[in-house]
Amino acid sequence: MPHSQAALEAASVEPALKKQKVPASLRRNKVVVRVPGSTANLGPGFDAIGMAVDIWNEISVERSTAFSITTSGEGADRISTEVASDGASKHMVMRALQRAFEYAGEVPMPPLRVHCRNMVPVCSGFGSSSAAIVGGLIAGLVLSGKELRVRGSNSSANGIDPEELLQLANQIEGHPDNVAPAIYGGIQLSLVFDKVLDPDVQQEVMSRHLPIPSGLRLVAYVPSEAARFGNGSDKTEEMRNLLDPTIPRKDAVFNIQRTALLVDALHRGDLKVLRHATKDRLHQPMRGEKAYPHLNDMMRAALDAGAHGSFLSGAGPTVMCICSGASGDIFAQKSEERQEREVTDAMRKALGALDEKHVQTWGHGDFYIVSPTEKGAHVTFADPAFSDGLATFGSLDGRL
Amino acid sequence: MPHSQAALEAASVEPALKKQKVPASLRRNKVVVRVPGSTANLGPGFDAIGMAVDIWNEISVERSTAFSITTSGEGADRISTEVASDGASKHMVMRALQRAFEYAGEVPMPPLRVHCRNMVPVCSGFGSSSAAIVGGLIAGLVLSGKELRVRGSNSSANGIDPEELLQLANQIEGHPDNVAPAIYGGIQLSLVFDKVLDPDVQQEVMSRHLPIPSGLRLVAYVPSEAARFGNGSDKTEEMRNLLDPTIPRKDAVFNIQRTALLVDALHRGDLKVLRHATKDRLHQPMRGEKAYPHLNDMMRAALDAGAHGSFLSGAGPTVMCICSGASGDIFAQKSEERQEREVTDAMRKALGALDEKHVQTWGHGDFYIVSPTEKGAHVTFADPAFSDGLATFGSLDGRL
Repeated sequence: MPHSQAALEAASVEPALKKQKVPASLRRNKVVVRVPGSTANLGPGFDAIGMAVDIWNEISVERSTAFSITTSGEGADRISTEVASDGASKHMVMRALQRAFEYAGEVPMPPLRVHCRNMVPVCSGFGSSSAAIVGGLIAGLVLSGKELRVRGSNSSANGIDPEELLQLANQIEGHPDNVAPAIYGGIQLSLVFDKVLDPDVQQEVMSRHLPIPSGLRLVAYVPSEAARFGNGSDKTEEMRNLLDPTIPRKDAVFNIQRTALLVDALHRGDLKVLRHATKDRLHQPMRGEKAYPHLNDMMRAALDAGAHGSFLSGAGPTVMCICSGASGDIFAQKSEERQEREVTDAMRKALGALDEKHVQTWGHGDFYIVSPTEKGAHVTFADPAFSDGLATFGSLDGRL
Repeated sequence: MPHSQAALEAASVEPALKKQKVPASLRRNKVVVRVPGSTANLGPGFDAIGMAVDIWNEISVERSTAFSITTSGEGADRISTEVASDGASKHMVMRALQRAFEYAGEVPMPPLRVHCRNMVPVCSGFGSSSAAIVGGLIAGLVLSGKELRVRGSNSSANGIDPEELLQLANQIEGHPDNVAPAIYGGIQLSLVFDKVLDPDVQQEVMSRHLPIPSGLRLVAYVPSEAARFGNGSDKTEEMRNLLDPTIPRKDAVFNIQRTALLVDALHRGDLKVLRHATKDRLHQPMRGEKAYPHLNDMMRAALDAGAHGSFLSGAGPTVMCICSGASGDIFAQKSEERQEREVTDAMRKALGALDEKHVQTWGHGDFYIVSPTEKGAHVTFADPAFSDGLATFGSLDGRL
C-alpha cells in the first residue's frame, strides 16, 4: 500500500525531516561550496553560542568514475584521505556527502572526485570538522538536486522554523554550536530539544541569529599543528571527556547570568561588559587545568592589555579574544589597531613566561586577527547552474 | 591616626560601599515609600532574571518616641510585628531600617513608628520580602538623609556602574533577582560577582535592565494563604533546600540555551518562542515533584490554552503565565483578553483535576491578572520634602 505508507510517513515526519527521492533530471555534475570556520562555546555559552569567522574552506565535488579525495592547505599532511571503492571513508566531507545522497534518495552514492582547499586550521577549536560536514552536505544536496526547507520558509505556530540542513549537520556533528554558524554565518544561538521536555517540537535543534556589534574583531592564538595533534586526532571527544557530567549548581548560575549578559550586550553593542559576559565556569577551568597550560595566563594577559573579552574557542586549544569594536572615525580605528597589537604582544609575552616544557609544546603557534562573518556557507559554482541564479539556493537562509 | 584610617577605608571600599556619617541637619521626620512586587527565577533565569509587577506595598515610617510596627492588607494576621525597645525585630522592614541607619551613621537607630500596607501576597513567590527590604532601606536612608551612588552616576572603565542600594539590599536578601526589580522596576538581569573569579570588580552584584515586550501581561495563580504558610514562614529557605548543590551538566546547558533565547526574545519582542524560552531544568522539576503538586499540570494547561510561556514564580508556589503581548487595534486587544480568560479557565480546570488531597491544599487560591511595571521603588512623601522635588531622589535610577 504505497499510498497509505507515504501518507503515514508524511504525517510522522512533518515538519521534521522528510526524505523524498529526487528525480534524476535535477542532478548536477559539479559543485563548489565555501564554508566559514567558527568559534563555539562563546564564553559562558557552552554548547549554545557560536560565531562564524572570516576564514574559509572550499570544497569542490564532481561526479567521476571512481572515488578520490585530495586536500591542500591546513592539515593536508595530517588528514587521511583514504576512501574505499564504495565511498566509505573516515573523511568528514565524504561522510557528509554519503548522508546527503542517502537523504536525497540517490543510493548508492555515485563515485565522486573531492578536493578540499582548507584555510581553517584543523583540530584547533575553529570548527574545521563542522565546516567539512556542512560543506559535504551542501555539495551532496546540490549534486543530487535535493532542496530543503529552511528558516523563514514556513514559520510555524510554536515559533520554530524548519531547518532541515541544520538537523542533518547536527546529527553528524553531535553539537549544533559550530554547524549553525557554519551554515548561516554570524553569531548563532542553538537550542537542542528534548523529546520528553519539548514534546511539541519535532525538530531536534533550532538556531537563532544574534547581532554582531559593529566593528568587532578577534585576535586568536592557534597553537602549532604538532601541539594540536598531540592529543590524537579525535581531540573534541577527548576534551569533552575532561568534563564531569555533573557540575556545581553555582557554576550553572554563574554561566546563566553571564550568558544573559552576553546576549544583552550583543543586542546593545555594549563591548564594555564583555569581560564579564565572556567568563565561564563550565569548561574553561577544567580544560585550562588539565590540558591547556597556556589558556589562563593568555586570557588574563589579553584582558589586562585591553581586550574586551577572552575565551577558549570551542574545545580549544585556540585562545580567542574580542579585541575591537571600533567604528567611527579614522583616529579611533587606528587606536584600536594599536590595541590589537598590544593584546597580541601581551599574549605572546604570557606564552613566553610559561614553564619551559609548556613553552616547547604550546609556544609555537600563530596569531590570527580575523573578523566575524555574517555570511555562511554558500555555493560558488554549480554545473548545471541553478535555474534562476545562485541567489535562490534556499538552504543558506537566503543570504547568498 | 584618624586621617590615615579614613584614607585607608576610602581606598579599600572605593568604588564599593562607603560609609559616611550624615550631618544631623539632613535628617527627615517622615517618609512614605512604595515598592513593587516581583517575579524572580524567570523561567530558565534561575537566580538571574526577575521582573517587577504592578502590585505595590506602601511603607510609612516616622520618627517617634518608641518603636512600633503595624501591618494591614496581605499577611497582616501572619506576620509578627514584635519589636524590642531597641528596635530589634524579625520584621524585614525593621531589619532593613536598622541597616540603613547604621549605614548612614545614625547609631543607635532612633525610635520609629512603621506602618505597612501590603498588596503583595506574602510567602508566595511574589517578592514580598524583597519589597520589605528595599522599602525599609529606602525609608531609613531618606530619614537619615543619606544619599547613595547609583547606576548612571559614575560609569567605570570596566562597565560596572555603582549600585549602592542594590549591594545593601542583596546583603540582606542573599539573592539579587527579586531586589533588583523591586529597586529599579522592569525586567532586571542580575550578576553576582565572585572575589576569586572577578578580582577586578569591587561590587558584589550588578544589575541590567532588559526590555519588556510591548503589552506583556501576566496571569498568576497564587495558592491560598493556608497553603503558602503550610511549609512554615521561612519558605524560600526551605524551597532552596529541595535543590541539590550539584546538577547534571546537560541541565545547565538546557538552561543556558534557553536563557540566551529568553534575552534575545525580550530584545526582539518575540513572544512566540517564549514557550521554549521559559523552560527550566534547575529548580522547577524538583519543586514540582517534591513540594508543588499543582505546578506541572497548571503550566501545561496554560500553554495548551495559548499562554506564551509559564514558569514557577520565584521559589513558588505561585504559577506565572505570560499571557499576552497584544498591542495594536481594539479587536486584537479583545481577542487577547479572551485568551487570558481561557488560560485562567484551563488552569482552574487543571487544578480541579488534581488528586483530592492536593485540591484541598492547593486548590483554594486566587488568580491575578497583572502587568509588569517599569517603575521601581519610589518615595511618595517626605517631610521635610526633598529640596528640589521628589524627582531627584537618585537611588531610584532616575525613574521617579
